[in-house]
Amino acid sequence: MELPHAERCALPGKGTLVIIGGHEDKEDSREILKEVARLSGGGKLVIATVASHTREGYFESYQKGFEGLDVSELVELYLDERSDASKTSALDKLQGATGVLFSGGDQLRITSLIADTPVEKCLREIYLEGGVIAGTSAGASMMCETMLVKGRSEETYRVGELQMAPGLGLIRGVIIDQHFAERGRMGRLLGAVAQNPRVLGIGIDEDTAIVVRGDCFTVIGSGGVYVADGSGVTHSNVAEARTGETLSIHDVRLHVLAAGDTYDLRAREPGLPAAKEAEEQRQ
Amino acid sequence: MELPHAERCALPGKGTLVIIGGHEDKEDSREILKEVARLSGGGKLVIATVASHTREGYFESYQKGFEGLDVSELVELYLDERSDASKTSALDKLQGATGVLFSGGDQLRITSLIADTPVEKCLREIYLEGGVIAGTSAGASMMCETMLVKGRSEETYRVGELQMAPGLGLIRGVIIDQHFAERGRMGRLLGAVAQNPRVLGIGIDEDTAIVVRGDCFTVIGSGGVYVADGSGVTHSNVAEARTGETLSIHDVRLHVLAAGDTYDLRAREPGLPAAKEAEEQRQ
Repeated sequence: MELPHAERCALPGKGTLVIIGGHEDKEDSREILKEVARLSGGGKLVIATVASHTREGYFESYQKGFEGLDVSELVELYLDERSDASKTSALDKLQGATGVLFSGGDQLRITSLIADTPVEKCLREIYLEGGVIAGTSAGASMMCETMLVKGRSEETYRVGELQMAPGLGLIRGVIIDQHFAERGRMGRLLGAVAQNPRVLGIGIDEDTAIVVRGDCFTVIGSGGVYVADGSGVTHSNVAEARTGETLSIHDVRLHVLAAGDTYDLRAREPGLPAAKEAEEQRQ
Repeated sequence: MELPHAERCALPGKGTLVIIGGHEDKEDSREILKEVARLSGGGKLVIATVASHTREGYFESYQKGFEGLDVSELVELYLDERSDASKTSALDKLQGATGVLFSGGDQLRITSLIADTPVEKCLREIYLEGGVIAGTSAGASMMCETMLVKGRSEETYRVGELQMAPGLGLIRGVIIDQHFAERGRMGRLLGAVAQNPRVLGIGIDEDTAIVVRGDCFTVIGSGGVYVADGSGVTHSNVAEARTGETLSIHDVRLHVLAAGDTYDLRAREPGLPAAKEAEEQRQ
């Protein structure tokens, strides 16, 4: 039986999402920051530090990180509270921007402060018109329709343990987790996938990102990206097990993608860099 | 095309293997120790502390752990060097035992001291005659034909990083890793599987074990057991990538098994506890 295609793609529009697993290099290769600058087309880039409960020098570290890269203007967008997200001062920051990068912190602070405000509307306009929306760590998680908020790392998922919440929904049909291999988060990602296998689990390592356009993404950076596809799952115990019981889930299709690898979100198929693909076919 | 069945099973014989992911509970539920005692049939149980570079109180902790359980005699087997593994004093310890439990430490110390010695021969006899051979942590890893010795945890596998060595080969066609979710070891297990997808990757959490008889195992304990089946892998970069490059591997079939779940090593199929299976069929 052919199921209808699930909506698994970035929000329709001309823009690009750069979803980063945290701790992107800001001093040496700066591969991910270079890509964000390139995708912003040398325009104005806004560093949205909204996820942070205090202004903690995030902006300063990005000022250093983007030094010498092709960015005409770098500005910080910080909000003390939700009402600020309707103020002209905030909207002025976003005016004319071709890129926005959300730094790390608490994903709930991003959604609770900006969702359904003029700042969010502005963000979507930048994306629709071809800009780049990037986010690292909490800024990565919040891109999803349903985002992971809390869940133990370094253990197998136990039923009832995850906390999720509605995200900004810039990408559909996926759950994103970050600091992935570094914090041993396979257990909690599989817990999320088990709850609704329609949703594709994507775990992104530190200094690694997926660059999403439409329904495809490409991996950049130094680590791996794990894709847990639950569409063929034959059994899981999330519904029947008691709270605290260990997850059982059979038949997950798992990919580990490295720099250059691609993934088609709609077809649920991994791919290789075009050059490598041609070479493998020749052999 | 039907491939011939790979030899993926415990060593032929009447015995049972109990392969433990480390840190099995010794004070409260003692679920795994109870199973080891039960499988030894109330006979003499040898705690082989050979993996440890010094006698570090391992035996004493097991004396406490097995207190009150049905074990007629509990003795320690420690070897200072390889020549001890041919001595009568060591063989006397194993004489009449119905079970041996290898504690944690360094898996290379186990293999380099006992492989191809009278002690190992004695061990195999205990197994062949229906005894139980258990091992935790290093004692779990050494059960394989090719064992994982070293590899970074908490990061995605980078080509060239794993250290492997020949193990005791009590179980064939699998690579076992331990402290699995707790130390974020998915990356290195997939690295091992990528190198030879014939080999099934099995990652065992702490306080969790697989009980293997012939070509089937059952999970016991509080955590999860990850089975990474690479037989359907469509692409990996382990052979062509430069040392240090991040692993790319597509189409791994992954299962997370919890207590009661079973796995058929030969058919490469997970199963449910008999009771649950019947219930799922009724629905």
